[in-house]
Parts: sequence; C-alpha cells; structure tokens
Amino acid sequence: MREVFQQELQEVRERLVEIAELVATSIEKATRAFNESDVSLAEEVIAEDHRIDQGTVALDELAITILAKQQPVARDLRIVVSALRISASLERMGDMSTHIAQLARYRFPDKVVPKKLRGTFADMGALDVEIAQKLAELLRTEDVKLAEEIRNEDDKVDDLHLSVFDTVLGEKWKGEAADTVDATLASRYHERFADHAVSIAKKVQYLVTGDWDPDINAGV
Amino acid sequence: MREVFQQELQEVRERLVEIAELVATSIEKATRAFNESDVSLAEEVIAEDHRIDQGTVALDELAITILAKQQPVARDLRIVVSALRISASLERMGDMSTHIAQLARYRFPDKVVPKKLRGTFADMGALDVEIAQKLAELLRTEDVKLAEEIRNEDDKVDDLHLSVFDTVLGEKWKGEAADTVDATLASRYHERFADHAVSIAKKVQYLVTGDWDPDINAGV
Repeated sequence: MREVFQQELQEVRERLVEIAELVATSIEKATRAFNESDVSLAEEVIAEDHRIDQGTVALDELAITILAKQQPVARDLRIVVSALRISASLERMGDMSTHIAQLARYRFPDKVVPKKLRGTFADMGALDVEIAQKLAELLRTEDVKLAEEIRNEDDKVDDLHLSVFDTVLGEKWKGEAADTVDATLASRYHERFADHAVSIAKKVQYLVTGDWDPDINAGV
Repeated sequence: MREVFQQELQEVRERLVEIAELVATSIEKATRAFNESDVSLAEEVIAEDHRIDQGTVALDELAITILAKQQPVARDLRIVVSALRISASLERMGDMSTHIAQLARYRFPDKVVPKKLRGTFADMGALDVEIAQKLAELLRTEDVKLAEEIRNEDDKVDDLHLSVFDTVLGEKWKGEAADTVDATLASRYHERFADHAVSIAKKVQYLVTGDWDPDINAGV
C-alpha cells in the first residue's frame, strides 16, 4: 500500500510539473504577444488555456482518489491537500496569462501600452517568465533555494507594478483613458501571476522543510 | 464514528456560514465606505480582514484534521475537499472587499469615482452585498434556488463591469488618469468578488444535487 501511495504521489508531482511547464510556456508566449502585438501568438495562448484547465481538473480528481483510497495522514495528507491548492493557483496563473494575451489581441494592431511603459512591461513580463520557469523547476527538484529566488523576483514585480501607477498618475502622463485602463489591468495581471507563484513556492517550501508560515494563504 | 463525523461536518458548515457572514459585513461596509468616502469605515474593513483570514485558516485545519481522523470517502470526502475550496474563495472575497476599502481610504477626502460613475458603482456594490448575503444563506440552508439567484446577480455585475469600461473609454469621459485607474480597479474587484461567490455557489449546488459542472473551477 505504502509503495502504491508513493507511486501515486510521484504521479501527482509529475503532473504538477507538467502543468507548471504549460503555464511557463503560456506566460512566455503571452508576454511576447503583448510586447510585440503578435495577435496570432495571443490567440494561441487563449486557445491553449484549456490544456491547463484540464490538467488541473484531472489532477484534482487524482488527488481526491488518492485521499479516498490511500487515506493518508500527517505529512502525506498535507502533501495531497497542498497539491490541490497548488493546482488551483496554477489554474489562476494560466488565467492571468490568458488575460494578458487578451489585452494584446483586443488592442491589435496597436501595441497595448504606450512607449513610455513598454520597458517596464518588458521587464515585468521577463520576470514573470523567469518566475514560472523557476516554479516548474522548484516543483521538479524541491530545491527550496528556488523558492527564495521566486520571492525576490516577486518583490521586483511588485516594485514595477507600483512604478506603473507612478507613471500613469504622474503629471507627464499623456496616455488616453484606454492606455490607462490597459496599463492598470496588465500590471495587475502580471502582479497577481507572480503572487500565485509565491504562494505555491511557500507551500513547497513548507512541505520540504516543515516550517509552517501562518500567512501561507494570505493574499492569494 | 459516523456520528462524530456528522457533528464535525456540521461544525465545518457552521464555520463556513460564520466566515460568509463576516464577508457579507465586510463588503457592506466597504461599499458604503467607497460610496460615501467614509475613511473610518474603510479602516474598519481593512482592520477586520484578519478575522476572515483567521477563520479560513482555522477552518482549513479543521478540514485537514477531519480528513486525517475520519478518513471520509465518496460524497463525504468531496464535502470536506469542497469546504477547503470554499474557504479559499471566501478568503479572496474578503481581500476584494479590503481592496475596495483601500481605494476609498487612499482617495479620501475625495470620492473614489467621478459623479458619472457613482450610480454604476452604487449598483455594483449593492449587488455584491446581496450576493454575499445570499451566499451566507445558501451555505446555511443549502437552498439551491439561491445559487441560481447568485448566478443571475453575477450576470448583472458583469454587465455593469463592462459598462464601466464603455464609460471610461467613451468620448465623453473627462476623468483624470487617477479616476480611470480607480474605476478600472474598483470594477475589477467588484467583478471578482461576485465571481468567487458564483464559484462557491456552484460547489454547494454540486454537493446538494450531485450534478458536476466540469467548469466548476474555471475562472476562479
């Protein structure tokens, strides 16, 4: 029984990595579509989000089946419950990526944000891509050093998020209302994407080290 | 054992209702603070969000203890897993409410949105309050008629959300960038608040009727 359980846990882990890799591909394409106004790439991201959704639904079913058949307790139980939560966060990361792609498609053939902010969004996008790739790596290796790196990169995303508001609310901002709306939403999506990654990273860190952070669910 | 389990499930249900009531109070105060630029009310909402957070953390621990001790299967297992998910959505609803209060506080003594949009936000806020109250009622009574009502009200919130963008992007919009940012964020928070309620309502509906909606997690 124990051996079967370990195999099933391994299956859960592998599926989480697969979904995280889909998310990493999604955000990589979404930020490229966003930065380069590539509408066909944007549509690809939107069309492929269902793969992430299906992956998370299937994973949830597997986790529930494991709970029912294996009746895990203690740490094993927490691993399975954490997998359910990680799955929910990955699903939302896919949604954020899709929203970024939708902004790119909606504004086509124009670029989503005016020149002044393109550098900021390029940096934010690059950070989100890096975060997503490190997240997949963290889920695969459980190397908690990566969790720390993800947190640091999230801090940078937060700083950029605030700087978008500084720009938009500054006296020099000449953007139209549509630019302001797009910049606000895009910045929020990028920031939430990174937040979800941090939330997942904390759960992995907890599972590996056993250090429970009472704020583990706060803000996500 | 079975009887203990039923008692524990009842405890889970009662706690979910309690948290949902805290959320309903929170959104009621937040929308009032928002509409009336009441900064002390806004601060109350912000200060009390930790009660919702603590409630959800405690509920999650209870649910995990039940899984470990009672080893539920089939429908009982799904009830406990659903409770974990409902808890996560309630926590996010509290966050959305807090974000709305933060906008009110940030803009004080000014109102958050210009005159033109105040009616729309008053309607959106009233709908969110009604949705939250019905959600608490739904969790208490499991009357699935309420789930249907929540869905219908969410459709109205979505319409209002789109109408905010129509206004902000229309030729007659004379708001400053700060107005545009606030309207965009506030509208998004109201919309997400209602989305989470629908997601919870679907889970309750599923638990009561057994009809599984494969999109039950999509979009939240």
